[in-house]
Amino acid sequence: MLQEPSVQSEKTYENIVTYDRDPSTYRHWDLSVEGDVATLTLTVDEEGGLRPGYLLKLNSYDLGVDMELHDAVQRIRFEHPTVKVVVITSGLDRMFCAGANIYMLGTSSHGWKVNFCKFTNETRNGLEDSSENSGLKFLAACNGTTAGGGYEVALACDEILLVDDRSSAVSLPEVPLLGVLPGTGGLTRVTDKRKVRRDLADVFCTSEEGVRGKKAQDWGLVDHLATSRNWQDKIAERIESLRADSVRPDDAQGVALPPVDRTIDDAGYHYPHVDVVLDASRRVATITVSAPKEAVANTPDEILAAGAGWWPLAMARELDDAILMLRTNNEEIGVWLLKTRGEAARVLEADAALEQNADNWLVRETTGMLRRTLSRLDVSSRSLFAVIDEGSCFAGTLLEFALAADRSYMLDLVDDPETSPRITLSSMNFGPYREANGLTRLETRFQDRAETIDGLRGMTGEALDAQAADEQGLVTFIPDDLDWDDELRLAVEERASLSPDALTGMEANLRFGGRETMLTKVFGRLSAWQNWIFIRPNAVGETGALKLFGTGTKADFDRRRV
Amino acid sequence: MLQEPSVQSEKTYENIVTYDRDPSTYRHWDLSVEGDVATLTLTVDEEGGLRPGYLLKLNSYDLGVDMELHDAVQRIRFEHPTVKVVVITSGLDRMFCAGANIYMLGTSSHGWKVNFCKFTNETRNGLEDSSENSGLKFLAACNGTTAGGGYEVALACDEILLVDDRSSAVSLPEVPLLGVLPGTGGLTRVTDKRKVRRDLADVFCTSEEGVRGKKAQDWGLVDHLATSRNWQDKIAERIESLRADSVRPDDAQGVALPPVDRTIDDAGYHYPHVDVVLDASRRVATITVSAPKEAVANTPDEILAAGAGWWPLAMARELDDAILMLRTNNEEIGVWLLKTRGEAARVLEADAALEQNADNWLVRETTGMLRRTLSRLDVSSRSLFAVIDEGSCFAGTLLEFALAADRSYMLDLVDDPETSPRITLSSMNFGPYREANGLTRLETRFQDRAETIDGLRGMTGEALDAQAADEQGLVTFIPDDLDWDDELRLAVEERASLSPDALTGMEANLRFGGRETMLTKVFGRLSAWQNWIFIRPNAVGETGALKLFGTGTKADFDRRRV
Repeated sequence: MLQEPSVQSEKTYENIVTYDRDPSTYRHWDLSVEGDVATLTLTVDEEGGLRPGYLLKLNSYDLGVDMELHDAVQRIRFEHPTVKVVVITSGLDRMFCAGANIYMLGTSSHGWKVNFCKFTNETRNGLEDSSENSGLKFLAACNGTTAGGGYEVALACDEILLVDDRSSAVSLPEVPLLGVLPGTGGLTRVTDKRKVRRDLADVFCTSEEGVRGKKAQDWGLVDHLATSRNWQDKIAERIESLRADSVRPDDAQGVALPPVDRTIDDAGYHYPHVDVVLDASRRVATITVSAPKEAVANTPDEILAAGAGWWPLAMARELDDAILMLRTNNEEIGVWLLKTRGEAARVLEADAALEQNADNWLVRETTGMLRRTLSRLDVSSRSLFAVIDEGSCFAGTLLEFALAADRSYMLDLVDDPETSPRITLSSMNFGPYREANGLTRLETRFQDRAETIDGLRGMTGEALDAQAADEQGLVTFIPDDLDWDDELRLAVEERASLSPDALTGMEANLRFGGRETMLTKVFGRLSAWQNWIFIRPNAVGETGALKLFGTGTKADFDRRRV
Repeated sequence: MLQEPSVQSEKTYENIVTYDRDPSTYRHWDLSVEGDVATLTLTVDEEGGLRPGYLLKLNSYDLGVDMELHDAVQRIRFEHPTVKVVVITSGLDRMFCAGANIYMLGTSSHGWKVNFCKFTNETRNGLEDSSENSGLKFLAACNGTTAGGGYEVALACDEILLVDDRSSAVSLPEVPLLGVLPGTGGLTRVTDKRKVRRDLADVFCTSEEGVRGKKAQDWGLVDHLATSRNWQDKIAERIESLRADSVRPDDAQGVALPPVDRTIDDAGYHYPHVDVVLDASRRVATITVSAPKEAVANTPDEILAAGAGWWPLAMARELDDAILMLRTNNEEIGVWLLKTRGEAARVLEADAALEQNADNWLVRETTGMLRRTLSRLDVSSRSLFAVIDEGSCFAGTLLEFALAADRSYMLDLVDDPETSPRITLSSMNFGPYREANGLTRLETRFQDRAETIDGLRGMTGEALDAQAADEQGLVTFIPDDLDWDDELRLAVEERASLSPDALTGMEANLRFGGRETMLTKVFGRLSAWQNWIFIRPNAVGETGALKLFGTGTKADFDRRRV
């Protein structure tokens, strides 16, 4: 096992993994923009692995390669607003991408693998999110062998073009070669996105060599074929077709994305609008998001002038980075307390700017960035408690944190109703931030009951105190100031004491109600998590909770979340 | 670890686990019928565990207790057709049911636990299936503590009545007490069936003591409360209300269910209409279902007279038993070959009888039994290959086996088209046998494409040869007689050589396309299976496939399916 990095007590923090990337220092991807087409070319530097111990041969990837892909797509979104089509291809001969590096996987801990897969899943989902919501279309131009994770990248694109050279195949060889699954969406996208017949999918997913040429097209595994000779013509044709579906502007000035302004110290991670304080002994992180200090820009020109400094965008980028930092570097921090600070009025002004300029490309991209960042929260395997206390501003977009949380605590200052904390709904709570299940967080919370949602819509803009919020079902607990400290402390202590694996499985189930059939979830999602937990040492190991139940000995858990 | 039973080489077979149960020998449940109400009373015999090593205290259950529940519900379905409401309650004081026995779980292997959970899940799903399709309504009369799996039984009922005695609570204490999940549908039914708000569900599922009284009702965890004093009145009231929703007959003669006629020998399991031949060295079971030998009864009176001997019912009971026997006693048999023998015309006559008498209570119950049995196939963690060869009769109901399979092989006798095998659709393929995802197997196969389904409906009754079946997408491969033996042998050998865990995860994903959102499946279902597999020795152990990739050493798998 390689040593995974973690927060160091030394002052250098050099072992902390960061997600900062910049095109000028990419080692694996090349981003070139010509007119309204961006081309992302993968030519992996074999020696450029994020950690030592493996070579990235045959355009195989590790987390570092994917960080660059994620950064490149972000740059296209914000710095190149007139790009309508992104072509993803390879700089190698006859090799598009061999997928995740197997030696990296083989030498990684369980937690590292899961975190790696989660980030790569999110990056691929992000391609589809941009296609659907921002009209940025993706063409996988597979100019060679497209295997495993390589095919999963292609599956996330709008179209797959495969070279028909009698040797290049698409394949998902994980099951026959590695005894694991094509887990970065592969199995699901083959059946649900590409609608491949389930028996053909079975044959495909158990074949080492994969499927090529006309058969790949007939089975629905790829959309188009081209010989090496007409390769460029075919790409041009597909770009022409995809371009027509794009709603991105013909003419616009991009917004530069400077590095996220982050300081790391013993206390945690600090950004202008987001602060993360780590409490290792309690295994708790407190994430505080600050409202804008003054009114935000609210016209297209002013928003463009503000650029990456515009509060909604700056805050989203900082929060996104904080989530990734915590996930990757702080496995043992099991509870995230979500707080807000500042004036709710400033947040609601920002929401108004987002709503009123929804057709503006930069606002659309910023809303997308917020949506994807909130979605990262939903799938973070950490317990999320929202803390709605004095000085907080859970309004509109920031109220989504409370709605994303597993539970929320709202202070009820019964003796001082004037200064008691308030929460406020805005129109942003009713649409733009849909979760992976296709529902808004309010719809998930209220089981998609239209009359409840309509009732809440009528309260938009009202500052609701703890009693009112409780009555509407928007918060979980409303302790008064006498109980507040103890109740919150006990709840956090109790949560941090439970089995991390059981919590991971439980939260993954409870966070996504509805929009599946119950029985498929019982047998698929739920049983899957259960089976996993059943063989985890935290349940059945010598010091596991199931094993020790009734012996009088307390379970001793491995605290690392995965 | 207790020793799990397996097929013995001795001639006694006494260690084989069978599911045969009969009310006269129940040790844990009492079934009493009065008018149109059946009462199932749980009074677990502490000493009556299926295997030695644990005591079934506090009405906790193991697989044996659940076999009796399953049998009792089957008897109500067939032997007591005029029962409209089933009351499930406890014979203990202040203790409804403490859930699955923890010591049994703690001493069981991973595979035993998973198989146990699967069967209990299916039994609970069966309650809901009967409520929805046969109008048999279930009232959980929780006259005491209702914990863990006990509450999960209650969740599967139509209504939950809890005694309000200031001490009896409903609870799902698995996460805080055991570090595992409420995995028999608990987490899913709380949010998706009972629509409990997700933050309240979070509080509930992390609480050891649970929730009682009015709060349990307010949160949606139970439907009704009654004090000990008005307990019987309240039960009578709820029966009255549930009875009104039942479509079961006011007057009908039941059909006795004799023990399934099964012989066990070294070759396998043998029934009048189902034969299972085990090949331990190849890790393959061949399951052959025979068509009726003569025309089946097709009027209500004749069907009733035929009773449990009526082919659709007899075959369903035998197949159901065979599936359970194989799952429980033959973990290392990884591939099930599904065959049929006999006259397709006889099968289609049986289907016509099922369709024409669909309103008859016995036919409705038989169709339900077939639906639930086919559903067991869908969730069996074994590779299913349908073999459509000479002498087969994959028609209508029996064609569902081929549609349930991961893939199918159909012999194409190109030189002898007259005797080439045929498959035939019947109306039974277009509705009654819906899978857990709410779709028919044809809808799942063809991604719910209405025009394709309509086209197939037009071919009902046509005997399609291999070429035609292939053209319609109904089969996977159509080897000719020259290739047949080798192609099938190689496919089976290859399948049996792959990682059992990877296959289990892959099949669980590919079998249920659609009717979920893709992203929730990627993060929930698929990631869950992947995480599980990532820590299985078959992937990452010293001899696992991922660990050994590229070393030149072949992976050595633990062959037991779970």
